[in-house]
Amino acid sequence: MKSILVLNGPNINLTGQREPGIYGAQTLESINAAISVKAKELNLAVSFFQSNSEGALIDAIHRAVSEFDGGIINPGAYTHYSYALRDAIAAVNKPFVEVHMSNIASREEFRRFSVIAPVTAGTIAGFGKVSYMLALDAIKGLL
Amino acid sequence: MKSILVLNGPNINLTGQREPGIYGAQTLESINAAISVKAKELNLAVSFFQSNSEGALIDAIHRAVSEFDGGIINPGAYTHYSYALRDAIAAVNKPFVEVHMSNIASREEFRRFSVIAPVTAGTIAGFGKVSYMLALDAIKGLL
Amino acid sequence: MKSILVLNGPNINLTGQREPGIYGAQTLESINAAISVKAKELNLAVSFFQSNSEGALIDAIHRAVSEFDGGIINPGAYTHYSYALRDAIAAVNKPFVEVHMSNIASREEFRRFSVIAPVTAGTIAGFGKVSYMLALDAIKGLL
Amino acid sequence: MKSILVLNGPNINLTGQREPGIYGAQTLESINAAISVKAKELNLAVSFFQSNSEGALIDAIHRAVSEFDGGIINPGAYTHYSYALRDAIAAVNKPFVEVHMSNIASREEFRRFSVIAPVTAGTIAGFGKVSYMLALDAIKGLL
Amino acid sequence: MKSILVLNGPNINLTGQREPGIYGAQTLESINAAISVKAKELNLAVSFFQSNSEGALIDAIHRAVSEFDGGIINPGAYTHYSYALRDAIAAVNKPFVEVHMSNIASREEFRRFSVIAPVTAGTIAGFGKVSYMLALDAIKGLL
Amino acid sequence: MKSILVLNGPNINLTGQREPGIYGAQTLESINAAISVKAKELNLAVSFFQSNSEGALIDAIHRAVSEFDGGIINPGAYTHYSYALRDAIAAVNKPFVEVHMSNIASREEFRRFSVIAPVTAGTIAGFGKVSYMLALDAIKGLL
Amino acid sequence: MKSILVLNGPNINLTGQREPGIYGAQTLESINAAISVKAKELNLAVSFFQSNSEGALIDAIHRAVSEFDGGIINPGAYTHYSYALRDAIAAVNKPFVEVHMSNIASREEFRRFSVIAPVTAGTIAGFGKVSYMLALDAIKGLL
Amino acid sequence: MKSILVLNGPNINLTGQREPGIYGAQTLESINAAISVKAKELNLAVSFFQSNSEGALIDAIHRAVSEFDGGIINPGAYTHYSYALRDAIAAVNKPFVEVHMSNIASREEFRRFSVIAPVTAGTIAGFGKVSYMLALDAIKGLL
Amino acid sequence: MKSILVLNGPNINLTGQREPGIYGAQTLESINAAISVKAKELNLAVSFFQSNSEGALIDAIHRAVSEFDGGIINPGAYTHYSYALRDAIAAVNKPFVEVHMSNIASREEFRRFSVIAPVTAGTIAGFGKVSYMLALDAIKGLL
Amino acid sequence: MKSILVLNGPNINLTGQREPGIYGAQTLESINAAISVKAKELNLAVSFFQSNSEGALIDAIHRAVSEFDGGIINPGAYTHYSYALRDAIAAVNKPFVEVHMSNIASREEFRRFSVIAPVTAGTIAGFGKVSYMLALDAIKGLL
Amino acid sequence: MKSILVLNGPNINLTGQREPGIYGAQTLESINAAISVKAKELNLAVSFFQSNSEGALIDAIHRAVSEFDGGIINPGAYTHYSYALRDAIAAVNKPFVEVHMSNIASREEFRRFSVIAPVTAGTIAGFGKVSYMLALDAIKGLL
Amino acid sequence: MKSILVLNGPNINLTGQREPGIYGAQTLESINAAISVKAKELNLAVSFFQSNSEGALIDAIHRAVSEFDGGIINPGAYTHYSYALRDAIAAVNKPFVEVHMSNIASREEFRRFSVIAPVTAGTIAGFGKVSYMLALDAIKGLL
Repeated sequence: MKSILVLNGPNINLTGQREPGIYGAQTLESINAAISVKAKELNLAVSFFQSNSEGALIDAIHRAVSEFDGGIINPGAYTHYSYALRDAIAAVNKPFVEVHMSNIASREEFRRFSVIAPVTAGTIAGFGKVSYMLALDAIKGLL
Repeated sequence: MKSILVLNGPNINLTGQREPGIYGAQTLESINAAISVKAKELNLAVSFFQSNSEGALIDAIHRAVSEFDGGIINPGAYTHYSYALRDAIAAVNKPFVEVHMSNIASREEFRRFSVIAPVTAGTIAGFGKVSYMLALDAIKGLL
Repeated sequence: MKSILVLNGPNINLTGQREPGIYGAQTLESINAAISVKAKELNLAVSFFQSNSEGALIDAIHRAVSEFDGGIINPGAYTHYSYALRDAIAAVNKPFVEVHMSNIASREEFRRFSVIAPVTAGTIAGFGKVSYMLALDAIKGLL
Repeated sequence: MKSILVLNGPNINLTGQREPGIYGAQTLESINAAISVKAKELNLAVSFFQSNSEGALIDAIHRAVSEFDGGIINPGAYTHYSYALRDAIAAVNKPFVEVHMSNIASREEFRRFSVIAPVTAGTIAGFGKVSYMLALDAIKGLL
Repeated sequence: MKSILVLNGPNINLTGQREPGIYGAQTLESINAAISVKAKELNLAVSFFQSNSEGALIDAIHRAVSEFDGGIINPGAYTHYSYALRDAIAAVNKPFVEVHMSNIASREEFRRFSVIAPVTAGTIAGFGKVSYMLALDAIKGLL
Repeated sequence: MKSILVLNGPNINLTGQREPGIYGAQTLESINAAISVKAKELNLAVSFFQSNSEGALIDAIHRAVSEFDGGIINPGAYTHYSYALRDAIAAVNKPFVEVHMSNIASREEFRRFSVIAPVTAGTIAGFGKVSYMLALDAIKGLL
Repeated sequence: MKSILVLNGPNINLTGQREPGIYGAQTLESINAAISVKAKELNLAVSFFQSNSEGALIDAIHRAVSEFDGGIINPGAYTHYSYALRDAIAAVNKPFVEVHMSNIASREEFRRFSVIAPVTAGTIAGFGKVSYMLALDAIKGLL
Repeated sequence: MKSILVLNGPNINLTGQREPGIYGAQTLESINAAISVKAKELNLAVSFFQSNSEGALIDAIHRAVSEFDGGIINPGAYTHYSYALRDAIAAVNKPFVEVHMSNIASREEFRRFSVIAPVTAGTIAGFGKVSYMLALDAIKGLL
Repeated sequence: MKSILVLNGPNINLTGQREPGIYGAQTLESINAAISVKAKELNLAVSFFQSNSEGALIDAIHRAVSEFDGGIINPGAYTHYSYALRDAIAAVNKPFVEVHMSNIASREEFRRFSVIAPVTAGTIAGFGKVSYMLALDAIKGLL
Repeated sequence: MKSILVLNGPNINLTGQREPGIYGAQTLESINAAISVKAKELNLAVSFFQSNSEGALIDAIHRAVSEFDGGIINPGAYTHYSYALRDAIAAVNKPFVEVHMSNIASREEFRRFSVIAPVTAGTIAGFGKVSYMLALDAIKGLL
Repeated sequence: MKSILVLNGPNINLTGQREPGIYGAQTLESINAAISVKAKELNLAVSFFQSNSEGALIDAIHRAVSEFDGGIINPGAYTHYSYALRDAIAAVNKPFVEVHMSNIASREEFRRFSVIAPVTAGTIAGFGKVSYMLALDAIKGLL
Repeated sequence: MKSILVLNGPNINLTGQREPGIYGAQTLESINAAISVKAKELNLAVSFFQSNSEGALIDAIHRAVSEFDGGIINPGAYTHYSYALRDAIAAVNKPFVEVHMSNIASREEFRRFSVIAPVTAGTIAGFGKVSYMLALDAIKGLL
């Protein structure tokens, strides 16, 4: 059974109460619950980690060296400037899928560019909670 | 039963023989066959159209006004400059999902920016043939 | 009697149903009918051509070498990147007036720059259907 | 009867003697006379104001709050940097048409961008004296 | 008793009727009245000057050499390009506070950059009429 | 009684010993003491938090959802690149005032642009310790 | 005997009548005739195709997969933005030589950059009709 | 006897008291007196005009059409953005020499670019009061 | 005996297993051991700190105020955007040497610019583990 | 008999041993020998000059005023910044052909722009030694 | 008696035969002769040096350390990129005047920026041979 | 015994008398003497070459093909634009270390970018004379 790390970056803990017009009305807990259900169907073990701290997220990614076969990451605003997160993903050499709930291409200019994407296997953006479900399917295929 | 248009842009007809290291070894025909199978499972009707002509692609998109409930589009290189395709998608006011087989963020600089993405529901990139399968799931959820 | 080509570019065939808040509620047919009436008053012969294809628009412009004394062109989204259309207008050496129904300066950033305008006689933008009527007056004065 | 302010910005008082290859050989007085004739035909009252001073032009625009139903403005070189003029037009909340005698898109690079255009109803450029006549027609339609 | 010049730039005379959603519903007169009251409390003499003319504003700033101990300036749109205003403030060598009623950072791109700010003591933006009151407090502290 | 969070970002704990020519000679403790005195006068409850960690600052901002009515934030160098802090402030939907002790517009080029400012109510910069006092007045008016 | 496709892009069909100061007075037919003569000398089979349509040009390039050993292409204005043409040439994996009759480096700024050149074997520009003759020699050497 | 207009732009009236380290300690009056002496030697009639108003400077330049054979202009900060001044100089078609007392190339970045220089005969910068004297010599040679 | 802080930023804890082609095959522990040996030879006391957290690195730098005479820092990816780290180094006013194991100038574009370097004494990059040894020599000379 | 100068710029003397994957394995001497043979066939006299010095290359170009009818130049890296070489070619007013052995468009970004090309008759790039042979043909046609 | 070095950079040796419309019809010898005459009047000793080599020009500037009191330099095209020349002038710490015969601001874009000017005392451009005469006067005043 | 070329570029011959605040008070001769001493200790043979001429520096680098095992280069101002020097270093395929006495990152903007660094083994900057000593150590390790 393959093991997947589901990482969520800054402010995603507020999902559900934060700008629901953009991010939807479901909480991160309910999203994670849905991920767990789907992961079970796909025969994947999932671990969840959310942090607002860039360093803590990097620490978590490093755990993929020994503990995980791949990862799903919604880097939140770190998407747009955290070259340290990017280096972490490149360093652990496991497949990661970048996920966004909103369609970042249709929002502010600064959200159009991801510094993370070049070191991931691929990106899924714009489908709310479903983005994570698709990412599970995607990473299943990559392993 | 909802009806989906699957559009492929320039050079995608060569998939399978074109740079297989980037685009995979499957032909467009085999990809479309797989899409048909999955669409049936999802109870979606799919139509396929591939063209190297920007105008023909726009004409096809316009058909979505009366014939389709949504679309999946891999705009190929038009992704990066065809504001006319973008306007077509915006004009027909149906959900479209942008799809790329390769991870465009990790290739040449000019491939990092999509002029189409802001008018789509979302984007899926980097998973080869699987990108289309995920897009079917995604659009199923959007309808 | 002078002969004028009225060219409309991509997506303008959808005028009337496409984002009526921006482009108005009249169809291209009704706009063309109004143009015909006004052209008659000005003693101008008008021909109409709309295409979503850059190549077909260029072909039509080339007809101005032998068939037309001038042209009115709404290049749609090609306004912003079709150097091929620009070259076509420069090549036929007849006066063209660039027309836009919306005020392109108050919309997305990419719509602020026209690659076509430098080779036209002038530009009229922002007056909906009336933009074409003013262009007829303008080209009448140029011939 | 609607009342229109016709504003001309810096150096336009020299029209007729200033670079006639670009701006034509008619003086501002003769242009204004032609505007008066056409305005009468359109049942519009017109007032004329020319100044080389940005502040004086803003003062004049402010008069539109109480005295005018709309305006026609050729901002001259202020077109390209006077955000103060732009704010003035936005503040008075009446329709303005931006007019240029020359085709500013085919001249120096700095003339390609108008800071005024986004707050006007539309723009007419390139037809010499006729640009003003077309603007009268346009504003007639807007009122 | 210290003497302060309160300068307002282009279009601020229309405050109250100009885009009240952005600038508030109070007139410049009522704002000035409130400033006078507060200045009295702070034992400051205040003089008011508003002009739409860059030159007149510079002339007024020059008066600070001999008549004022400091200034409060809302440069309006001149904020973004008037290097002449900037040079005037630098030349008179008295503390000036830059004030904006709206939060200029959250509006159009061109409003994000002030050419005036580097030669002022500091900036206060976003608090409507209150911005001026805070500036009085600030300049009181600077003198 | 309204409750206000006073947040200070990286390196502000060194205020008083760090480049006193720019930041003044008072310590953060003495500044906070002065804030407390003034807050009492204004009938505001204040809590203080300083951290050099972006993640800890975001965590603190999140507390505003349930514990505070507004905030004052000096983001230090995070001002110029922390889109994660920006998202945190936007997410909690309470008024924040951005504060800088130095006049950031007159320092290095990179300090001229704030990614935080667009989601705050307003900005006060350049008045040393007094910047915080003015921010208290400002936020009092906003609540 | 090797087989070469000679492709000409938009507006090149007007060569001879179009701006002869830049492009020379010979028609495309006479240029093609000269190419045929020279190709015979070099023992090369040549096929000619000109189109104003980007899509048709891509279709033609695709024929190189099975029908041609190499190509000579004058992409006209598509040189400067058609990433779709570029991808087509890269996809067919045969040597192409980019040709321009005029010296594009000494004309408008936008003509200085070719998006096609990086995927060709080389470029020849500035020698009028002779550019094609040199390209024949060049491709002869490449095969 | 040739007649020369000596124009000085914004803030130059403060020369002598304004940043003497950059602009020198002499007043504009004493500079003008020195110019008068030298002009007499060169058999040139000189008129002086200084204004902080862009419009007033343009009005003065226009007088060159009928009253002056050439001009010397120190545009102050208008050097860097007043396209209206530039157009005025171009419009009157008399030789102008641009003068700066300081070496503008060694100061702030924004002072490195002159929008006026392209329409003048030449530029002299960096020699304090002497810049004007050299300009007199220069314009003497141009007439 | 002088005391030196050796700081390593994000992902450097993975050195040895992370992209050994770029960073070498030695672990951070073995590098630190070699540093200790050399420091002893140079009569320098060294302390080591590695963190993936920007805030923790800043906290560590602050310790230099009272505990260290200088520092050696390999900021990892923070090199390219952490203005907060930069401010920390500037604040403590002790000599720091910036170190990189790889030659950052020959890698991705974003690695070519260091925001840290302007506040350090100097930079050493490209010599793998040896970079640290050279930095020890360098800082020995600076103390 | 026409006389041609064949100029080679910096590092081209190392051709054959320098990065043979890019520049081929032939030495400059053998290339020059081949040029001599072909020049004889074309009834052209050729002189050869190679230098790593920008000044020496300019001196050589100047000889074209009196000694040569045209030139072939491979400016090496000077292609990308030597405006002095450009001015030299423009000054001597004889046809020059710019030559590159590699396809400079497919290499580093800085090699994509030639400051020399605008003053040459045309450019040939990408064909190794053959580029010089084609240039001989080209210049033969230009004389 | 003060001693002045008159330096001329690349291609200026061709003055008189090189683009006389821009640079005038006089040779460098005749210009130097005129400079000698004027220098004598001003009681200045002048030495002349022209070279097309950046290195030789730097060597000559270095002679100013011991042999000259100042310099006049027309850097030709090196004006726009030779930071080495700039450093040379800064290193010798003697006043230099930058001279251009043409008005470089009205020519190609690349000629608008001088990397030399910031380290000179001032610049004189646009007056042909007279530029040198004015520079003599200027440097006389500086010594 | 390995042989090292120590190259110094433009203006470095003036070290000691040139801006000693930046470059230190030691002459190049004394620096070279110290290098010789240290080289001896490291059992390295060193040759010294300084030139202000780009071409002469390239010639010297070429000698590394047959005479040297590596090089140390302080390219002076050529650091920032000499792609010819860069190509020379790449061509000879021996390790070079780039050295700067000053910390170029903390000086003018143009000094922040090295075109040479990507083809060297590494860079050492900011330690005055010591930079060369460290480079000797570094190159010792590389051989």
